[in-house]
Amino acid sequence: MTATPTPPSPELLYLLAGDEEEFQLACADLRPADIADALNKLPPDAAARVLAALPFNRAVQLFDEPELERRGELFERLDQSAAVPILEAMSSDQQVELFRELPEPARDRLVHVLAAPTRDALRLLLRYPETSAGGIMTTEFVGVPAAWTVERVKAYIREVGNAKETVYAIYVLDPAGQTLQHVVSLREIMMAADADRVDGVGEQREPITVRPLTDREEVARIIGKYNLLAVPVVDDARHVLGIVTVDDIIDALVSETTEDVQKFGGMEALDEPYMQISFGAMVKKRAGWLCALFLGEMLTATAMGYFETEISKAVVLALFIPLIISSGGNSGSQATSLIIRAMAVREVTLRDWWRVAVRELPAGLTLGVILGVIGFFRIMLWQKLGWYNYDPHHVLVAITVAIALIGVVTFGSLAGSMLPFLLRRLGFDPASASAPFVATLVDVTGLIIFFSMALLILRGTLL
Amino acid sequence: MTATPTPPSPELLYLLAGDEEEFQLACADLRPADIADALNKLPPDAAARVLAALPFNRAVQLFDEPELERRGELFERLDQSAAVPILEAMSSDQQVELFRELPEPARDRLVHVLAAPTRDALRLLLRYPETSAGGIMTTEFVGVPAAWTVERVKAYIREVGNAKETVYAIYVLDPAGQTLQHVVSLREIMMAADADRVDGVGEQREPITVRPLTDREEVARIIGKYNLLAVPVVDDARHVLGIVTVDDIIDALVSETTEDVQKFGGMEALDEPYMQISFGAMVKKRAGWLCALFLGEMLTATAMGYFETEISKAVVLALFIPLIISSGGNSGSQATSLIIRAMAVREVTLRDWWRVAVRELPAGLTLGVILGVIGFFRIMLWQKLGWYNYDPHHVLVAITVAIALIGVVTFGSLAGSMLPFLLRRLGFDPASASAPFVATLVDVTGLIIFFSMALLILRGTLL
Repeated sequence: MTATPTPPSPELLYLLAGDEEEFQLACADLRPADIADALNKLPPDAAARVLAALPFNRAVQLFDEPELERRGELFERLDQSAAVPILEAMSSDQQVELFRELPEPARDRLVHVLAAPTRDALRLLLRYPETSAGGIMTTEFVGVPAAWTVERVKAYIREVGNAKETVYAIYVLDPAGQTLQHVVSLREIMMAADADRVDGVGEQREPITVRPLTDREEVARIIGKYNLLAVPVVDDARHVLGIVTVDDIIDALVSETTEDVQKFGGMEALDEPYMQISFGAMVKKRAGWLCALFLGEMLTATAMGYFETEISKAVVLALFIPLIISSGGNSGSQATSLIIRAMAVREVTLRDWWRVAVRELPAGLTLGVILGVIGFFRIMLWQKLGWYNYDPHHVLVAITVAIALIGVVTFGSLAGSMLPFLLRRLGFDPASASAPFVATLVDVTGLIIFFSMALLILRGTLL
Repeated sequence: MTATPTPPSPELLYLLAGDEEEFQLACADLRPADIADALNKLPPDAAARVLAALPFNRAVQLFDEPELERRGELFERLDQSAAVPILEAMSSDQQVELFRELPEPARDRLVHVLAAPTRDALRLLLRYPETSAGGIMTTEFVGVPAAWTVERVKAYIREVGNAKETVYAIYVLDPAGQTLQHVVSLREIMMAADADRVDGVGEQREPITVRPLTDREEVARIIGKYNLLAVPVVDDARHVLGIVTVDDIIDALVSETTEDVQKFGGMEALDEPYMQISFGAMVKKRAGWLCALFLGEMLTATAMGYFETEISKAVVLALFIPLIISSGGNSGSQATSLIIRAMAVREVTLRDWWRVAVRELPAGLTLGVILGVIGFFRIMLWQKLGWYNYDPHHVLVAITVAIALIGVVTFGSLAGSMLPFLLRRLGFDPASASAPFVATLVDVTGLIIFFSMALLILRGTLL
């Protein structure tokens, strides 16, 4: 959809000619993200050979590019004499990401040969979990003393601009304690008079900051809410440890969404692209939840065991079991997905559980009545048209199914909407497999509701 | 988690004092997004009174703030004499969003009183769907002729900077045709010499552009991939129609995720916050899909009808129906969520369906065998421990359940992974209720697989 012409295919050229220079030539006009795409399509050995043959700056650019997959694996295939300078030249947030992809022994080896400043920065950043602000921040930001003039700040940006992740947010530090005093945007700097002191430029509000352990989703929410290009990460004493920029956040948002969707579908997050993860790793990630849900669903067999006599007396009841429990499951997963999302965007917090319950009870009841009425007429119609024979007591069977549907859908909506609150209260991520979890819960309860209704309505006739 | 002190609660102050000035005073130090939060918590009448009492610039800022909910409703409560200048002063992308929230008659009334340039810009932008680049772009960007010097560009930015959405991307236009020739960043402008021509600054690559009808998710992908702060939207002749900035994209990503999760949970996207949508509208949105799935699930009753004789002969089989069909549904929704996500992040495209099928078949088979083995031992164990009596043929029952599980889970994984391809091929959004859809499909097929296996294995003994 971009207007840029279809790029030539450097990976194809390389595979045909087997020549690293051919690849490089084909890439001359491409952006790093596109070259990374081409490298991603090569086998790791070939990609590593191409990277090794690239000029130093180009290689740094590529290892700095989050689009490049298998970064750890490719890095390990480089000679150490080539690898160390590349790592040193990378931006600090990408160094950390690369380091995270390396196996333990390779990390240990590297730590000993890296320059002291790089090593210390890495050690600091690696302390934070990768889903936290500290784990995705970069330490390359523009910090200036409060007493500088606008003119001096501009000169400084011209001097160091290329080495910083962003120059659009400038952090004004108190010269005494090096603590954060003020944040100005480059736009504000551009609009100000050259002789003005930088700490007087722009709106004089308490800067928005986050802590190193703030969750990256929360950082995304803050950056989105206040339309920021970057947010500073500060410690207790208000020293700036680093900044999280908006492009880190976009990457983080995309991986959070992937995780959420995968968890929602009832599995552990894959962490790797579907086509690249090994068969064994994928099956392992999927089998865990599937087995857990299976063990939960076994309760349905136990529950049904209690009603074996009823089923043998009225086999007609068994016909509606899948219909009834799946309706409960569907209404439950609807309610769960609604609440999980409302929680994620902060429309609903933990203490709103009661208000949600008060909405879901009538909503579930209404939905249940709608399905119950459809179910009732389905049975009556099939009977009338002679498509199936639910006699001797087809009206009673239809009533039983309808009332069971009302009960199951109401319970499903209520349970589905309350489960995310319960999970969060217990300290779990509400997105973790909530939908399949609720389906299992509702299946078991649904059976009990159905057969209890049947006993109530059909006793003395069918049962 | 921000280090900013807890803000006072202006909405509470207002509700206690009933005084617009009190609210305004409490808000003096707050950012627009936080004032919007406070207004969101007031009843619409009170919020409109507060907005009407605000100074003009403050009111414009707030209506320009995407955090402000019920913008259309609040706008309608303003006097027309106050409303029109506010709308005129808003940024073009927010004008469009506000317009979209207004009812038809209010729009028609406004169109006649707006100034011609605003009206024309609005008409242009309203032509595009709100999920497209054209629907979220702003027309306020910095465009400069190719022949200008860096110095002149800087002077121009100082002059118009406040009225533009962003000054960090500068669009260099061909003076003859006003077409896009080059894009420079403000960082590059800062680093360049004052006397340089602007079209020679920065890397001389074909600019990245999108078309007005490009989907906003695709725009997000491009902005994320190339780490852009904004992307220009161009027509066929390469005229710049507007730009989409990174903060529009964050808002869009968050609403896309909400839509996806809601669709995934089996319902139409709510479009409104859970706590604010009317009861009727919510039930309507939920009932549609629930009824569609219910009608689909009715096929399970039909399918079971064919096996009524078998069930009456071997009631023990009925006990495992929920367990077996739910295992198929769970494995199906896992596979679906994996593939939907892989499609969304472009790891997998339509023509990969065959490669996915070749992975899912053995994956499903492996997962099926795992569950089958657990199921087999569950039945044998209960029998041994005397917890339940599956005799006279408990071994055969256990074998039937195990083999049915293998078949159902394999089928579920395969069907679940192929459904997103089918939906996309037919032009639908693969996220639309795929998971519940696949569950329904697998429920019906699962029953048929289960009873076919039973007939095969148990004929002559139980059946």
